[in-house]
Amino acid sequence: MFFHRKELQYHAKPERPDPLFAKQLQEILGGQFGEISVALQYLFQGWNVRGNGKYKDLLMDTGTEELAHIEMLATMIARLLDGAPVGDLEEAAKDPVIAAILGGMNPQHAIVSGLGAMPADSVGNKWTADYIIASGNLLADFRANLNAESQGRLQAVRLYEATSDPGVKDMLSWLIARDRMHQNQWIAAIKELEAKENVVVPSTFPKELEKQEVSYTLFNLSQGNKSATGRWAHGTSMDGLGTFNYVENPVPCTKKPKLNPAPPYIHDTLPSVLRENNGLIPPSL
Amino acid sequence: MFFHRKELQYHAKPERPDPLFAKQLQEILGGQFGEISVALQYLFQGWNVRGNGKYKDLLMDTGTEELAHIEMLATMIARLLDGAPVGDLEEAAKDPVIAAILGGMNPQHAIVSGLGAMPADSVGNKWTADYIIASGNLLADFRANLNAESQGRLQAVRLYEATSDPGVKDMLSWLIARDRMHQNQWIAAIKELEAKENVVVPSTFPKELEKQEVSYTLFNLSQGNKSATGRWAHGTSMDGLGTFNYVENPVPCTKKPKLNPAPPYIHDTLPSVLRENNGLIPPSL
Amino acid sequence: MFFHRKELQYHAKPERPDPLFAKQLQEILGGQFGEISVALQYLFQGWNVRGNGKYKDLLMDTGTEELAHIEMLATMIARLLDGAPVGDLEEAAKDPVIAAILGGMNPQHAIVSGLGAMPADSVGNKWTADYIIASGNLLADFRANLNAESQGRLQAVRLYEATSDPGVKDMLSWLIARDRMHQNQWIAAIKELEAKENVVVPSTFPKELEKQEVSYTLFNLSQGNKSATGRWAHGTSMDGLGTFNYVENPVPCTKKPKLNPAPPYIHDTLPSVLRENNGLIPPSL
Amino acid sequence: MFFHRKELQYHAKPERPDPLFAKQLQEILGGQFGEISVALQYLFQGWNVRGNGKYKDLLMDTGTEELAHIEMLATMIARLLDGAPVGDLEEAAKDPVIAAILGGMNPQHAIVSGLGAMPADSVGNKWTADYIIASGNLLADFRANLNAESQGRLQAVRLYEATSDPGVKDMLSWLIARDRMHQNQWIAAIKELEAKENVVVPSTFPKELEKQEVSYTLFNLSQGNKSATGRWAHGTSMDGLGTFNYVENPVPCTKKPKLNPAPPYIHDTLPSVLRENNGLIPPSL
Amino acid sequence: MFFHRKELQYHAKPERPDPLFAKQLQEILGGQFGEISVALQYLFQGWNVRGNGKYKDLLMDTGTEELAHIEMLATMIARLLDGAPVGDLEEAAKDPVIAAILGGMNPQHAIVSGLGAMPADSVGNKWTADYIIASGNLLADFRANLNAESQGRLQAVRLYEATSDPGVKDMLSWLIARDRMHQNQWIAAIKELEAKENVVVPSTFPKELEKQEVSYTLFNLSQGNKSATGRWAHGTSMDGLGTFNYVENPVPCTKKPKLNPAPPYIHDTLPSVLRENNGLIPPSL
Amino acid sequence: MFFHRKELQYHAKPERPDPLFAKQLQEILGGQFGEISVALQYLFQGWNVRGNGKYKDLLMDTGTEELAHIEMLATMIARLLDGAPVGDLEEAAKDPVIAAILGGMNPQHAIVSGLGAMPADSVGNKWTADYIIASGNLLADFRANLNAESQGRLQAVRLYEATSDPGVKDMLSWLIARDRMHQNQWIAAIKELEAKENVVVPSTFPKELEKQEVSYTLFNLSQGNKSATGRWAHGTSMDGLGTFNYVENPVPCTKKPKLNPAPPYIHDTLPSVLRENNGLIPPSL
Repeated sequence: MFFHRKELQYHAKPERPDPLFAKQLQEILGGQFGEISVALQYLFQGWNVRGNGKYKDLLMDTGTEELAHIEMLATMIARLLDGAPVGDLEEAAKDPVIAAILGGMNPQHAIVSGLGAMPADSVGNKWTADYIIASGNLLADFRANLNAESQGRLQAVRLYEATSDPGVKDMLSWLIARDRMHQNQWIAAIKELEAKENVVVPSTFPKELEKQEVSYTLFNLSQGNKSATGRWAHGTSMDGLGTFNYVENPVPCTKKPKLNPAPPYIHDTLPSVLRENNGLIPPSL
Repeated sequence: MFFHRKELQYHAKPERPDPLFAKQLQEILGGQFGEISVALQYLFQGWNVRGNGKYKDLLMDTGTEELAHIEMLATMIARLLDGAPVGDLEEAAKDPVIAAILGGMNPQHAIVSGLGAMPADSVGNKWTADYIIASGNLLADFRANLNAESQGRLQAVRLYEATSDPGVKDMLSWLIARDRMHQNQWIAAIKELEAKENVVVPSTFPKELEKQEVSYTLFNLSQGNKSATGRWAHGTSMDGLGTFNYVENPVPCTKKPKLNPAPPYIHDTLPSVLRENNGLIPPSL
Repeated sequence: MFFHRKELQYHAKPERPDPLFAKQLQEILGGQFGEISVALQYLFQGWNVRGNGKYKDLLMDTGTEELAHIEMLATMIARLLDGAPVGDLEEAAKDPVIAAILGGMNPQHAIVSGLGAMPADSVGNKWTADYIIASGNLLADFRANLNAESQGRLQAVRLYEATSDPGVKDMLSWLIARDRMHQNQWIAAIKELEAKENVVVPSTFPKELEKQEVSYTLFNLSQGNKSATGRWAHGTSMDGLGTFNYVENPVPCTKKPKLNPAPPYIHDTLPSVLRENNGLIPPSL
Repeated sequence: MFFHRKELQYHAKPERPDPLFAKQLQEILGGQFGEISVALQYLFQGWNVRGNGKYKDLLMDTGTEELAHIEMLATMIARLLDGAPVGDLEEAAKDPVIAAILGGMNPQHAIVSGLGAMPADSVGNKWTADYIIASGNLLADFRANLNAESQGRLQAVRLYEATSDPGVKDMLSWLIARDRMHQNQWIAAIKELEAKENVVVPSTFPKELEKQEVSYTLFNLSQGNKSATGRWAHGTSMDGLGTFNYVENPVPCTKKPKLNPAPPYIHDTLPSVLRENNGLIPPSL
Repeated sequence: MFFHRKELQYHAKPERPDPLFAKQLQEILGGQFGEISVALQYLFQGWNVRGNGKYKDLLMDTGTEELAHIEMLATMIARLLDGAPVGDLEEAAKDPVIAAILGGMNPQHAIVSGLGAMPADSVGNKWTADYIIASGNLLADFRANLNAESQGRLQAVRLYEATSDPGVKDMLSWLIARDRMHQNQWIAAIKELEAKENVVVPSTFPKELEKQEVSYTLFNLSQGNKSATGRWAHGTSMDGLGTFNYVENPVPCTKKPKLNPAPPYIHDTLPSVLRENNGLIPPSL
Repeated sequence: MFFHRKELQYHAKPERPDPLFAKQLQEILGGQFGEISVALQYLFQGWNVRGNGKYKDLLMDTGTEELAHIEMLATMIARLLDGAPVGDLEEAAKDPVIAAILGGMNPQHAIVSGLGAMPADSVGNKWTADYIIASGNLLADFRANLNAESQGRLQAVRLYEATSDPGVKDMLSWLIARDRMHQNQWIAAIKELEAKENVVVPSTFPKELEKQEVSYTLFNLSQGNKSATGRWAHGTSMDGLGTFNYVENPVPCTKKPKLNPAPPYIHDTLPSVLRENNGLIPPSL
């Protein structure tokens, strides 16, 4: 159950409106690695954990914080859109800044949301739950979380480089710091789980049931063998259970597959037509 | 540039058809963490790397292998669909297995693909590039890859548990082994990059530009403080640059935000209407 | 800023697992009118309101409650999935209930989410922000909200009819009651705004700028004139500013449109080819 | 069954081309509340009505009209795209209007549709049936229709403000008038149904089966109690069957939920790992 | 402008309800090649044709007919859903037909559409305008149309095989006949355009601007040379302007590409890190 | 199984960066008819063919080549993005070219992909498997392929017209030539199959089972009869099995459909409410 306070977790006030940057900033609100993604990813993971210990608490703490970040970004975007222009390009073109805004802003910020933030990314794709994961396996999921915080901080840093507005930079420097914490915390949690289980997910599948002869093999399938020089191609494997090896010239393990014909009620191309395939067709056709 | 051999990388032959399992197996072909996802994710990362060293080679090696896995799964699914029934439920219901197949199989396997595999997941959602990432920052991306291989192996293991067909199990045990290798290799590559840079992505953003006072803070935003007992709440941070701390009762840093009214040409609710808000409306309304 | 308590707002405990109903119940969690939709719709409307009065407070109160409903449904679904079977259909078919479960449950509940709830609907479509709206105009948006609560309650009622589990029915009867409140509250808020503005959204566009001759006209475009007998076809219009009228045989106001040819660099079909169109082509072709 | 006349229902001729406005105008053709949405929404509602009276006739009348509006907008957009430029930005940049057009127009209008209208919105998202609803319950659906016409007219008005072209304004003023009619007609139909049934959808669910103790309660879940001053917090409820009440400090009705562990074949994180959770991990990790 | 008559173009009445077949039949209503696709594809092509001759008329004739087919299928599906069961699987399981229906029907047919047809396919994916095309080049588009009618008729035939209901078969035999006509008509129109232009789209691009040395070459990129025996590998090309040839061992035309480093403000992996790549990393890492 | 060589199939080097054109060029990489579409379409068709003859070989040859085209386009786009600017519009606006780039480029090229290519189209929609088809019927599928190559070449030609960069034009002229070959080859394969089967897909459905009275009929459903002058309206049909005919005034074959009421547990609008429909409602409502 949730409670809300109307104060923001941190300041979200630009020095001046900037509808073009409002469009770009949508990326870390409603994009693949935006705040909606991390909020819902952590909350669903928390709700689905089948235990009530510290991992669940950590997920709920962090998921709840990300809701506050959605709120900060939504507020910032609404302010960046303050008084955004609409109008004719030909008149606008007298002022190249206005012309570039009209050409470059997200038109839905005026037409659809009435100068409000949208649950969408920087090109206007709506947020989708395709972006998130909660698998029930925490080691797997904490890796998803570390990935999300890595991509998310990278994007926030790129946006920091793209503005000179001190208010925007101030908010971003706060989010960038939080993303440092979140990367640190998921790394800590991952290390704990790796120490208890093993580095390979899932750790519960009996090793003798997998084809162990290819469990530590690098196949050189792209011509050139620079990859042979990496740590992943020799020495003890990272899970401590095998030895990396490198196959310079990989070959198939099987013959060409041959599929049975489809039954008549499927109306695929007839076997007879497929069989006649090999004769030459006269060029007159 | 690519070349193809028609032999499969590994066997993909079930002992008998099973249209219901064909539907389920689609998950690791065309689902969020299926083989299409890892193939295109690694290839796009490889094409976008701005350098020609071992990381690019590793990405191209692995991405090219995943194309072979798509092929194996497509072949297996086509064979699991051999002779899949169509027809009336009432007649079918005399045989409960047929009835359950008709009720449970993916109808598009008959109607749309003519007993062939589809670029879709186990509920029929078509594959989308929303699933993948290539950011240009390899540490971030290798974490995405480790996540994908963790989720992917978990799903393959769950599917292994869901069938008793020796041919299917044989192929899955091979894929499960390859996923072990791929987890191992991305861990190795991640460690290398973390050693060269730092564990926090991106490592190139000046630390003094972020709000360092919250860079290592866990906010207790979900009542109960079990999360305070984790490694992430005390001691040196995982990046070695700070000390974790825990805030039992987090508070907002700001006042309630107040947004400016929209300009008239946006036709949002008028400020006057919003202002009158506070008077009571007579219940007679 | 949000805070979380781990207790649920209301009970979410079924008497027994039921993986098939778990799939169906996803509809009001992650479907078009599920709890994710109303939560994010109300919160985005609240964040985008350009005023801090009672409407914003109402939106934040209700949006925050819907987050608790997501949590209840996620918990219920995880419990309905307790011990969900995986396995071979042929063996399963000995027990028709197990066979129907295997055929009918959402396979991603086992393979992807590990027996957890998903941000998806009852056929497995992932939640998308295409479902929601926040326009900046509160009268428009409260109508969206009334619609969402009407559809949502209808779906909850249909699900109530589809189960005999007392625990599930108990939770649904609570949600159905809340949906009654939410319909009531949006109706109340709509009436207030309609009284202050007018029933037509937006109320701020000058009436003389619209083609008033068709502002109250019903065109009979589907043969048969039963629609002429409705309130909408005669008498004073609902906005009190006009009189409904009915046009039995509507006609176009214009001639056939004629588009200019495309410039050559677009490589559309050539005007010359389009022009030659009218001569007969000999049947020998 | 449908018949078509090639004349447009109303004029759709701009004074001059404007590819940037063509992009924006796509919103009310192929966006969430564009003409494709209302056309297909009304038609599906009409086809699914299980009765042949005036409501069905009204739905078919209006759905058929919306098809004509799609046609008008498609024609207008094709004309706004007349002779749209393609070419190099550097040369274009000599003329800031051309530069802004090249930067701001929808590139698919040139590359994909060859200067034709597309079934897409103003940022290029393709139309999706996620936008529409036909539930079989007419009161619910007429509220969806009133919402669609409210959002749609709001967007048309915002577009009217964004152009000075008399031809475009002329067409929009016609559509804005039609949207007034359609709002009026759905309000009339809603009032009729509310009078026959009740304001709460669905009216057919026995009230004693819902948790009536929370059927009229506003929970104050966002700090601050301005919402207590609204009509929705006191007095007789809008359905006339209860009395609104306000809960200043809402509390959970339950204890923390505890989920059962997953079965081994799901390979979630092991209960033993989750249980060990509470001991402190040495900072040396 | 459109007009509607309430009579159906052809009968759409099953002998008895069949909710499972209703789900399957959705494919040719709202699937990739369903009636919504062809209706909107032909209408958009018609509206975008920049000429008013027989091609436009043919597109409008056929697009308008497809609207009638949507209507027939919607009606048929609503009837197949008559009295569809909801309820508990355990009770249902006493009757295996009911159990299979509950497991296999589309749950949204009960929960969302109230026993009405939906704009979705046979697995519940909502219709999307991603399915259609209108390019402004009629030869290209008529090929899209011929493809749509070929896939559509194939699907209708497969559905015909999957039911024994005489009413459903009657309607399908009518649609299958119409699809024969539509394939015939697009073939006729394609032949006409090919005769006027050339078989290669677009015909208006100067041949000397393309790399003519590879305009008729088949590269053998998949090991094995059965494809060399086809008509496409020797003789005069189908456009009559060249001669097919076959390259047994294709090679790249270029060296390995080398991308420039990214600027620092992008925060990609540093060139220095990428450069160090080639030294071996000690296995101790 | 696939192998990769790092050399490109053909040159992909622009003379100078152009971030705006990079955005446009995405269309033929990740758009509806881009290289990802043709690669995966041909490969899935190849894997699903139930025979190992020349058609399968041709599909695998061509699908494998298209992978190389993805690679060329990805490389070209990364180079067009070299050193793409980020920054403040107001400063940028001093140079109108920079302003137009900032306004017009895809912001995700900087924020998300770090100056790399994306699996997306020219407006930023991510690639989706909704774009492709593999039906098991080769004549149907080769028509899909011919359509894809026709649309794809048309788009490549339009992009050729939109740039003056000799390096880009060089690569496009190569792709345009390959598209000529691919159109030629699918035409050749189609002719072969049409000669063996018939021009109507599928050829295996007994003609007496379709309603032959409408198999060759053009219904004039759009007022005006220019379409009567086409080859499709008279003479022998293209399949040689019938005679085209034209119906000037088409009429419905049925009466108005009447749907049965829904069962009570669906909570649709009650039949009684629908029946009362026909009485006039007093205007006082």
